Amino acid sequence: MTRAVVLLSGGLDSATVLGLAREQGRECFALSLRYGQRHAAELDAAARIARTLGAARHEIVDLDLSRFGGSALTDASLAVPERPGAPGTIPVTYVPARNTIMLAVALGWAEVLQAGEIHFGANAVDYSGYPDCRPAFVAAFEQLANLATKAGIEGRPIHVRTPIIDMPKAAIIREGVRLGIDYSATVSCYQADEQGRACGTCDACRIRREGFAAAGLADPTRYRQPPR
Amino acid sequence: MTRAVVLLSGGLDSATVLGLAREQGRECFALSLRYGQRHAAELDAAARIARTLGAARHEIVDLDLSRFGGSALTDASLAVPERPGAPGTIPVTYVPARNTIMLAVALGWAEVLQAGEIHFGANAVDYSGYPDCRPAFVAAFEQLANLATKAGIEGRPIHVRTPIIDMPKAAIIREGVRLGIDYSATVSCYQADEQGRACGTCDACRIRREGFAAAGLADPTRYRQPPR
Repeated sequence: MTRAVVLLSGGLDSATVLGLAREQGRECFALSLRYGQRHAAELDAAARIARTLGAARHEIVDLDLSRFGGSALTDASLAVPERPGAPGTIPVTYVPARNTIMLAVALGWAEVLQAGEIHFGANAVDYSGYPDCRPAFVAAFEQLANLATKAGIEGRPIHVRTPIIDMPKAAIIREGVRLGIDYSATVSCYQADEQGRACGTCDACRIRREGFAAAGLADPTRYRQPPR
Repeated sequence: MTRAVVLLSGGLDSATVLGLAREQGRECFALSLRYGQRHAAELDAAARIARTLGAARHEIVDLDLSRFGGSALTDASLAVPERPGAPGTIPVTYVPARNTIMLAVALGWAEVLQAGEIHFGANAVDYSGYPDCRPAFVAAFEQLANLATKAGIEGRPIHVRTPIIDMPKAAIIREGVRLGIDYSATVSCYQADEQGRACGTCDACRIRREGFAAAGLADPTRYRQPPR
């Protein structure tokens, strides 16, 4: 069985990626990062999802990026915006180099596991303009991965799979529903409460809500209060 | 003053890189990783070196790679070899993706600090054949860095400087001596004891000892017992 490390945030996208990898018969090693994000609810969600979708193992790695700050997700003094930013701008919820760091940790684990794949739920359609979600970034990381590792230079390349990168949110949701994923167990909100209930106002909530609407499906998200 | 994040392991090479960066007038932010290595002595050394050489700040970031294992440096059940491996092989002291992870964390901090440079003490001459010490790896990381970050895509590129990558160990040592670096305070050994005293037999000890000999300088390394 092909082994894959699957980056699992606890949100909707990465849960779908794990579901797809399992459907393809991969032995999945789910990896989450406790990087100093505002809430632990998404990590609780990741653990639930890993179990439900049959990951062989789930690791939550600690790496505290809040000591550096520079993002509304890791610095409590920066507010999470309630409205989308201007087109072409990168919002303050961008965490400097976070996806590079997560992929790098995944790469280390993949090499030890002799896994030939890293599955990464980046999306470049319905997203917030983050630089480290674009296909060019992923391609550059894959190139780096095979120069960086013993596996790579010995001819056992490690591929970065991004099965949902070109899909609108509605299409991702339809895939997940087809796979039987319970999206009420996922947490996308940037500022969920301890029970994982979403704010309904941040960019992540907005994109997710619009995705369910576009898919013509009821939104199973648990909100703290009915969204406006 | 140009800001630079300097990767500082506590060994001879990265201490020299920090000394060179300070000589060039950089405001230096030293970064070390507690990744589950066999001993903490090199991190104590890093803290001393950062202070002595005038780093503006020194951060030790925790990221436990020993949960993944796969290297003699992070897995106590794998012995550190006492002899060099066959030419062209990568020794068991290679830590999967470690330098990629360290550079990724440095990238995140550099972006928050608005530092335009990461200084990295990779060496591709007197080294152990690690894939993530070669110029091609460094070039690929720099390319990735500027696709991955807001700074990069907004035209504030982050450069990876590797001032000693092409230097034989003896030349590095001569540079450090010129800068007044006290190499007795650095720890290169893979299995130093708690006081930072070197084993004298591992690959890192051998390369370092041969470097002092080739430079025609007395070896100030503190050994547990006189090297064979």
